[in-house]
Amino acid sequence: MSLEVFVAETFGTFMLLLLGTGVVANVALAGTKGNNGGFLMVNFGWGLAVFAGVYVAALSGAHLNFAVTVGLWANGDIAEFAPGVDKNLVTALAYFAAQMLGSILGAVGCWLAYKQHFDAEPDPANKLGVFSTGPAIRNYGWNLVTEIIGTFVLVFVIIAFAGTPSGLGPLAVALLVVGIGASLGGPTGYAINPNRDLGPRIAHAFLPIKGKGSGDWSYAWVPVVGPIIGGVLGGLIAMLVTFPTPAA
Amino acid sequence: MSLEVFVAETFGTFMLLLLGTGVVANVALAGTKGNNGGFLMVNFGWGLAVFAGVYVAALSGAHLNFAVTVGLWANGDIAEFAPGVDKNLVTALAYFAAQMLGSILGAVGCWLAYKQHFDAEPDPANKLGVFSTGPAIRNYGWNLVTEIIGTFVLVFVIIAFAGTPSGLGPLAVALLVVGIGASLGGPTGYAINPNRDLGPRIAHAFLPIKGKGSGDWSYAWVPVVGPIIGGVLGGLIAMLVTFPTPAA
Amino acid sequence: MSLEVFVAETFGTFMLLLLGTGVVANVALAGTKGNNGGFLMVNFGWGLAVFAGVYVAALSGAHLNFAVTVGLWANGDIAEFAPGVDKNLVTALAYFAAQMLGSILGAVGCWLAYKQHFDAEPDPANKLGVFSTGPAIRNYGWNLVTEIIGTFVLVFVIIAFAGTPSGLGPLAVALLVVGIGASLGGPTGYAINPNRDLGPRIAHAFLPIKGKGSGDWSYAWVPVVGPIIGGVLGGLIAMLVTFPTPAA
Amino acid sequence: MSLEVFVAETFGTFMLLLLGTGVVANVALAGTKGNNGGFLMVNFGWGLAVFAGVYVAALSGAHLNFAVTVGLWANGDIAEFAPGVDKNLVTALAYFAAQMLGSILGAVGCWLAYKQHFDAEPDPANKLGVFSTGPAIRNYGWNLVTEIIGTFVLVFVIIAFAGTPSGLGPLAVALLVVGIGASLGGPTGYAINPNRDLGPRIAHAFLPIKGKGSGDWSYAWVPVVGPIIGGVLGGLIAMLVTFPTPAA
Repeated sequence: MSLEVFVAETFGTFMLLLLGTGVVANVALAGTKGNNGGFLMVNFGWGLAVFAGVYVAALSGAHLNFAVTVGLWANGDIAEFAPGVDKNLVTALAYFAAQMLGSILGAVGCWLAYKQHFDAEPDPANKLGVFSTGPAIRNYGWNLVTEIIGTFVLVFVIIAFAGTPSGLGPLAVALLVVGIGASLGGPTGYAINPNRDLGPRIAHAFLPIKGKGSGDWSYAWVPVVGPIIGGVLGGLIAMLVTFPTPAA
Repeated sequence: MSLEVFVAETFGTFMLLLLGTGVVANVALAGTKGNNGGFLMVNFGWGLAVFAGVYVAALSGAHLNFAVTVGLWANGDIAEFAPGVDKNLVTALAYFAAQMLGSILGAVGCWLAYKQHFDAEPDPANKLGVFSTGPAIRNYGWNLVTEIIGTFVLVFVIIAFAGTPSGLGPLAVALLVVGIGASLGGPTGYAINPNRDLGPRIAHAFLPIKGKGSGDWSYAWVPVVGPIIGGVLGGLIAMLVTFPTPAA
Repeated sequence: MSLEVFVAETFGTFMLLLLGTGVVANVALAGTKGNNGGFLMVNFGWGLAVFAGVYVAALSGAHLNFAVTVGLWANGDIAEFAPGVDKNLVTALAYFAAQMLGSILGAVGCWLAYKQHFDAEPDPANKLGVFSTGPAIRNYGWNLVTEIIGTFVLVFVIIAFAGTPSGLGPLAVALLVVGIGASLGGPTGYAINPNRDLGPRIAHAFLPIKGKGSGDWSYAWVPVVGPIIGGVLGGLIAMLVTFPTPAA
Repeated sequence: MSLEVFVAETFGTFMLLLLGTGVVANVALAGTKGNNGGFLMVNFGWGLAVFAGVYVAALSGAHLNFAVTVGLWANGDIAEFAPGVDKNLVTALAYFAAQMLGSILGAVGCWLAYKQHFDAEPDPANKLGVFSTGPAIRNYGWNLVTEIIGTFVLVFVIIAFAGTPSGLGPLAVALLVVGIGASLGGPTGYAINPNRDLGPRIAHAFLPIKGKGSGDWSYAWVPVVGPIIGGVLGGLIAMLVTFPTPAA
């Protein structure tokens, strides 16, 4: 993988996390103008975060998500991670590194933009909630099932997009993420992306956030393992469906 | 009809129902993150469920709805159900079978994703409401009229899409469903699709849902018969309007 | 003007009014599922009503609005009302007739779809509000100014669309109407279309609506005269701006 | 720069500010139909204001924002402000003049459309809030940081759009602005555009608004300086990322 591809994936994931954690900060933290803006606003915020990130990372194929990387890897109909980028362990790990770097930096950017509202917010759980997901009802097994199903849909339909070109470009993935959030985000807050959850959780750990509490690390494996399983299943099961334009 | 077309229609309807029933679960069931997210969120959720399903089922023409199948059948300007799929009783029944199979499986997927919230929800009517539609004011005759009008709009405008190509692809149908939901969904919750209602109602009957109540089968014929009548009317009346690009 | 063009304009305006008045019924009438869905839902409902109507009326250029007809008429850079339809008094009146017929029929369709909720609604003003607009603060002069400004934006930007083609097709006009509603709909409920207001007001007068009240005819001239003035101004002032692709 | 380019930029910025300040008036002023419509409605209103403005100002490249002008200026990969418009101090100042003129006129238009609601609104701060932004928690340093980050995203991703063409045209920028508003608008109300804030603040100063209060000029430099810094950073840092289609 060239340095250019690595940089594109890093900046794209940075944009995704900056805007994605930003909308949660706006809805959740004390005294913001978007306070209590509703779940649909969160869904649109994350969807448009994807929209921005995909344009920025066009050169790397804009995975922005290690579940997408492993899902494309598992799918035997897809030959490359991106034009000119072979599917192998080294490039997969390079994607993961770029995604982690970008997601940590994006969370730092969100903290800077909302610095005063992090300071003003009294509840440590709301502060962590800007960075990482948490379950509405804690049960590792069922939380894992929800994350698997959500990520399965994400990767499966992204592969369908590639097989049925339209004029929408990155908007298609953005709208898919709005839809998955609205429809399958209710139980776990839809990580559907290991880096989206783990990167900001690491940022939460090292940033000097005033009055921060626990990082809830006992839950941290669920939004990593669930999306990876769901991504692989999405990549494999999509091979059962024939699309008009076969993947290159 | 080839097996490939059947599989595409099944997976597409699965995606439609998984995401469509999912958004209702998110808004209606106890303790979810999208609780009380509002009717517009439900409208976008169903519209984007269509969006995902249409991409997945591109090979079958993505009916995802037996009312669309019969509407296209009734329209004398349209020659095929999809490229290479003749319009006849056998293929129509094959579409119906794929749509039923996909819609039942999609509802099962929603139940798995929201398992703990189905368990936590005290009201059996809210549980059924995730699976199937019910009227705001029960009156079989007027409920039927509402479903006929909504499905008439759906099928008529889908045929208009085919006659006026734009660069939007599946997004056009998705937005149409958002609009029909917002505008005509008030009285009956807009089934506008026999399988969307009947498939999940069957899933509700056989799934081991904790504390479930009646399946309200006395209403079940309305969201089947209304959409079929509306679809046929849409297919026929669309023949009165000339579109710039005649259907193939 | 051929009969085909007349029929297209009629059916397109029918779709616009059926879906447009429908979303108001859903938000305003007693007992609907979308009750109190918010102003943004109304904005999206009207925008997507335009979306559906424009596809249906592609053959007539989809004015759907006499203010658009007079605006195009006033604009000296635009040669025809639609491909093959000359700009003259006879064709302008034929557009008006089609728009009035379609808008009355659309309002009738809305009444049928929401029949039970019209019956259940106790307030006659809410019933009329489904059909026609009314001002938040009644002052004919300032209400007229608001309608002029809103329609000026509509016609001006529609002409800009024609001069700067994108791949969006009818979605562009739909989004413009969402935006005008959100931004300029606060004082008068944004008729921005004479037929949108007058056609349903006529339907309100002759339909046997249970418990209906006054048709507020003293206000009825504002949403007719304001949009016509605004449309003409939009058509004229758009000639001051150069667009990359000059109108044909 | 030709007069045609100047006029296009002026009218485009007029549309942006008319519709943008309009949605705030609708949500914030007493007695409007969109009162308390929510932050997402404000986000869509501003996004669609950009949408309309970009179509109108296609000839000038539709900067509509001096932060975009300086960002493109700073970016060494971009050769011109618009086709045929050289990047130099004279043309940059001409863009600024057009943007200021358009933004003042747009705010005047909003005041006319909402005249009665400005009169009815008792709180002078709400009146000023229609015209100009203000911070949720006042701290010039951190407010500046937030405006820098938001404008950085705007200019960076606009440059990415140019490097990755899709069929969306002006819709891409519109959706980006919806996303930045939802995600980064919480602390300062997202000016992300010097003219968007300064032009209307000047209009607020000279218009005979009933019961108006202070123009809060001590804050006025933040939404000017922050966006200019953010725009320059966006233009420079975007040079680190390789896009599939290099800028012309």
